[in-house]
Amino acid sequence: MNTGVIGYGYWGPNLVRNFMAQNDCLVTTLADSRPERLTMAQRLYPSLKTTTEPDDIITDDSIEAVVIATPVNTHYPLARAAIERGKNVLIEKPMTMSHTQATELVELAQRKGITLMVDHTFLYTGAVKKMKEIISSDGLGDVLYYDSTRINLGLFQHDVNVLWDLAPHDIAILLYLIDERPNSVQAVGVTHTGNDIENIAYLTLYYPSGIIAHCSCSWSSPVKVRTTYIGGTKKMIVYNDLEGTEKVKVYDTGFEVKSDEDKRKILIDYRTGDIYTPKVDNREALSAMAEDFIRAAAGKGEPVSNWKIGYDVVNILESAQISIKSNGSKITLLNGLGGRS
Amino acid sequence: MNTGVIGYGYWGPNLVRNFMAQNDCLVTTLADSRPERLTMAQRLYPSLKTTTEPDDIITDDSIEAVVIATPVNTHYPLARAAIERGKNVLIEKPMTMSHTQATELVELAQRKGITLMVDHTFLYTGAVKKMKEIISSDGLGDVLYYDSTRINLGLFQHDVNVLWDLAPHDIAILLYLIDERPNSVQAVGVTHTGNDIENIAYLTLYYPSGIIAHCSCSWSSPVKVRTTYIGGTKKMIVYNDLEGTEKVKVYDTGFEVKSDEDKRKILIDYRTGDIYTPKVDNREALSAMAEDFIRAAAGKGEPVSNWKIGYDVVNILESAQISIKSNGSKITLLNGLGGRS
Amino acid sequence: MNTGVIGYGYWGPNLVRNFMAQNDCLVTTLADSRPERLTMAQRLYPSLKTTTEPDDIITDDSIEAVVIATPVNTHYPLARAAIERGKNVLIEKPMTMSHTQATELVELAQRKGITLMVDHTFLYTGAVKKMKEIISSDGLGDVLYYDSTRINLGLFQHDVNVLWDLAPHDIAILLYLIDERPNSVQAVGVTHTGNDIENIAYLTLYYPSGIIAHCSCSWSSPVKVRTTYIGGTKKMIVYNDLEGTEKVKVYDTGFEVKSDEDKRKILIDYRTGDIYTPKVDNREALSAMAEDFIRAAAGKGEPVSNWKIGYDVVNILESAQISIKSNGSKITLLNGLGGRS
Amino acid sequence: MNTGVIGYGYWGPNLVRNFMAQNDCLVTTLADSRPERLTMAQRLYPSLKTTTEPDDIITDDSIEAVVIATPVNTHYPLARAAIERGKNVLIEKPMTMSHTQATELVELAQRKGITLMVDHTFLYTGAVKKMKEIISSDGLGDVLYYDSTRINLGLFQHDVNVLWDLAPHDIAILLYLIDERPNSVQAVGVTHTGNDIENIAYLTLYYPSGIIAHCSCSWSSPVKVRTTYIGGTKKMIVYNDLEGTEKVKVYDTGFEVKSDEDKRKILIDYRTGDIYTPKVDNREALSAMAEDFIRAAAGKGEPVSNWKIGYDVVNILESAQISIKSNGSKITLLNGLGGRS
Repeated sequence: MNTGVIGYGYWGPNLVRNFMAQNDCLVTTLADSRPERLTMAQRLYPSLKTTTEPDDIITDDSIEAVVIATPVNTHYPLARAAIERGKNVLIEKPMTMSHTQATELVELAQRKGITLMVDHTFLYTGAVKKMKEIISSDGLGDVLYYDSTRINLGLFQHDVNVLWDLAPHDIAILLYLIDERPNSVQAVGVTHTGNDIENIAYLTLYYPSGIIAHCSCSWSSPVKVRTTYIGGTKKMIVYNDLEGTEKVKVYDTGFEVKSDEDKRKILIDYRTGDIYTPKVDNREALSAMAEDFIRAAAGKGEPVSNWKIGYDVVNILESAQISIKSNGSKITLLNGLGGRS
Repeated sequence: MNTGVIGYGYWGPNLVRNFMAQNDCLVTTLADSRPERLTMAQRLYPSLKTTTEPDDIITDDSIEAVVIATPVNTHYPLARAAIERGKNVLIEKPMTMSHTQATELVELAQRKGITLMVDHTFLYTGAVKKMKEIISSDGLGDVLYYDSTRINLGLFQHDVNVLWDLAPHDIAILLYLIDERPNSVQAVGVTHTGNDIENIAYLTLYYPSGIIAHCSCSWSSPVKVRTTYIGGTKKMIVYNDLEGTEKVKVYDTGFEVKSDEDKRKILIDYRTGDIYTPKVDNREALSAMAEDFIRAAAGKGEPVSNWKIGYDVVNILESAQISIKSNGSKITLLNGLGGRS
Repeated sequence: MNTGVIGYGYWGPNLVRNFMAQNDCLVTTLADSRPERLTMAQRLYPSLKTTTEPDDIITDDSIEAVVIATPVNTHYPLARAAIERGKNVLIEKPMTMSHTQATELVELAQRKGITLMVDHTFLYTGAVKKMKEIISSDGLGDVLYYDSTRINLGLFQHDVNVLWDLAPHDIAILLYLIDERPNSVQAVGVTHTGNDIENIAYLTLYYPSGIIAHCSCSWSSPVKVRTTYIGGTKKMIVYNDLEGTEKVKVYDTGFEVKSDEDKRKILIDYRTGDIYTPKVDNREALSAMAEDFIRAAAGKGEPVSNWKIGYDVVNILESAQISIKSNGSKITLLNGLGGRS
Repeated sequence: MNTGVIGYGYWGPNLVRNFMAQNDCLVTTLADSRPERLTMAQRLYPSLKTTTEPDDIITDDSIEAVVIATPVNTHYPLARAAIERGKNVLIEKPMTMSHTQATELVELAQRKGITLMVDHTFLYTGAVKKMKEIISSDGLGDVLYYDSTRINLGLFQHDVNVLWDLAPHDIAILLYLIDERPNSVQAVGVTHTGNDIENIAYLTLYYPSGIIAHCSCSWSSPVKVRTTYIGGTKKMIVYNDLEGTEKVKVYDTGFEVKSDEDKRKILIDYRTGDIYTPKVDNREALSAMAEDFIRAAAGKGEPVSNWKIGYDVVNILESAQISIKSNGSKITLLNGLGGRS
């Protein structure tokens, strides 16, 4: 599969390297507006054609797949042009700036019969796959909550806030792990830079069944933290992405609620049991993601990071944005594809 | 100082033991409605008078101080009766069920000229004292945020939610550490027991200067977590109360915001420096709290856990309760003492 | 069982408290040469008879059991006198200063038909019991090594070196966990105080089957460490006694040795698997130890901390002492009971 | 500086990459006996000349420096041939199989006036450089001990034991950090593979001033550990190489020895103070090592990893080997260069 890559900034080099290493794929062309980035790429891959014009990729009929790794506000026009030309498209997360744009891309992709996929790399990590396996096999009982802290010293961005930067990881993981769609969204935050772009924000998702999901995101923490608690009626997962070899721990420690007759007292049986730290696959997630895209583009089934996840990440981020700007009001989430569920 | 203790449940034994051990204090009488609890106490302290009637303590003119360690809904009537009799009063946290009750107690105490204090034990820990010292001496620069996770497998209570149980610790610490009063409160939560009492909840406090404080509280986590991040313009504290000897770490890693002329870009200078883990006093906090109460009752100055902190903890909890029941609306905090700041 | 306790220094108060709390036992008399220690005890236990003369306990026919918690050089004469009077005897670790003394006590106890036990408290901890359970049920495969680091800032003692102070814990644990007796001992160390008493020392035990056990002991480490690795052909235990709730971890990560024909290459199959952190009993070990002694003294079977363990701890310490003073020579361990295995 | 690299196995690729990236250096030729390894290298570096004959590098007069990354038993003949041709030589650790070989190489290098350096990469890590800085500025007081645990699941080697594999790191660090030479060596170990090559071993070094250094090395631990304690009269370092950002911690917790008049008691003042975790440079150590070699080869001063360190690592390993095969006898260390100090 001849592939063109647009954007060679922070993430682009990783994408080129991983697509180059796939068997059924050849990166033929790279576009970036900065000639010095292209020079850098050519030194590593002498056979690569380079151009400052994305259009050279989009209009090249020998190219079957386009990988878009440009700033988020350019995702929509580039992806749209590529899909219209019938090319399979992989976009950096998040897919677009709005659910309206995402809806259009998804519908266009379906009409054209091509694969539209968003690079939610975390879905391809050994840790997330292991947690999916545990939850799917009822390893936690009914999921009750998901609570994530994702903070670090971040490059303050001037166009999107910290939720658009960091929360897509948690939202994609949630949509992948839990077989239920949240129905409302709430977010609050503050800015310390005077530019109305939140550098600390908290996102809460509510589910019809009572599940609650919460994410703390910050660019203002010199200590990097990536810790997630996922609790169920039977067990609980502690997922620490910064741990070397013990990223996922399952706590066989739960509680049982028994109500007595007068309903005035709730008794809790404490139960404290073993901890199980499963072995987690170490393969580079980005390589598995590239492979999944190629497989899907070849018509061999829907990718793990499917368009529903890509769409809902944007949908939830947009609702969070509305909530944060309206003092934390609870925003009812749109159904799939802009209201048409 | 002859002291009576009302309530010998979970915390009462610790209070009796610590007050017994003070030099200037004698616990003469203990009240509890359960005779078997009284028997238990008498085995340890043969000299102790016991009674099932709190009134026996309140009406005993030889008793100068009353310690109230009963369920929170009984705090107000017991404390009121004791203050009216001119006794110094120490109440378990939180002080009362509402700011109206708290206002009444505070005003009555001021009229009677006695000491009214709430047992916010954490203010007397070596870790919190060390953090106060660091922040007061400008060790963090301007404080920007406070983010706390306080979760464990908890005894689900049938009258108050998880915020009333766990958040008083964080609120009292915040009021003690930061020389500014929050002006609005927001809270969200869920219940998994069908009784409308939240077992997981998130509290956010906003400050006029832009500080944000956030607390995650849960009774549904088999893993106990007590971690707080306090960030300033220059440094950051990580406070882990479950660490044995390294509870407080100061990260000399910060960022500086410089705005360039067109105000469209915010550049961040990354700075990553040393970590400093100060020695923290190990003395039992409850003993220091008892000593502070006795000192204050003897007219030797205001206690660290002063009535302003006690009052505002209730005030904030009540506002959080209103917020949580109105879908997370932002609630403007009443000024001190029920509106009269 | 009427019990007398001799010695009320560092450990004595814990012993009195735990024996007092047993159902089938009454501590009637306490001896210590320091009257102020006796006064302290009587304040807590008004019914206790006290004396500065150990003989008052040894010659008291109403006393059936004697607990000896005095400096190690007095263990032998006190225990001998008590056993001769037909009393059951519990001695603080280590039993005596030499294997000759230990042999005498053991033989005398057997003739008199009483229980002679050494307080190796660690054998009664939940962590050590769990490890025994794992190893006994072949959970590690064949044990290959035991490697322990037991260091802290210690009170330098003027009569025995750091091995006599800290290594008895490891030696007793080893003798309990592994169904094999070491056959030689090696030790090296240094002193930094100029008094010929090692404050840092390393002990190595060799077993006929090829097992190696190693203990690092130090009084000169401001960081307290209590970490033990126990490896087998199939799995490995990491035992960290300073962990709160995760003291014992079992690593299902092993290796398999396959030799190929020319014997020049050893191929290793790497296998890395899950980690399992079993729940460990939290009951206070000292209470279980007291109970076991009372049970044994009542003729209901041999205690867990039996005389063979007590004897071999002394035997190994004495051999280690000889090794350390002869530049680390390998010392063949005496068979049980001074040569008569 | 034109450079030839001999050996493209486990470490060779890292060396080629880092030397390629240096400004004043060009890797022109690569030798390896396995054609498939050469093919692999040429794909990455199309300009590289490759050969299966090391001699093609040694006899090439355009090559000024030779990097030897072959099995340890080939180090001596290859290095000797290269030095005789007047080339600067960098050898993988350890330098040779014996102090006799090392002496010859060092003396030859001095006669030829070229740079002979051993790749003790750890000396170029930020953590070790920071510790050197602390110790040199008297940050610990007088050093008293060095205790290292370096264990992992290792590839059992069929020619050298675990000490030759793992201990060179600790020995080189010791020689670099401490301005004193050990004067005797002791080692013990076991083999579990029946081939007389120890897979677990313990090394002890003694210094004239009373410093003791101890290293636990093992290939049989599924848990990887890299922890070193370095204690002085005033402070102590805990160096954990597996920590991400907190590799070096300095404990301001010490003890003071005061001897009282009768010399029978040693009193210890406990002092427990702050911990300081300095920022440590993150630059890749191998790159700094390559730069240092190039600088030294250009005649700009002795490298950090100087020949004395390289020589003594071999010297100590050889003495350890003798000790381990003579039941742990204490072996007096040869003076520098085979006896001629």
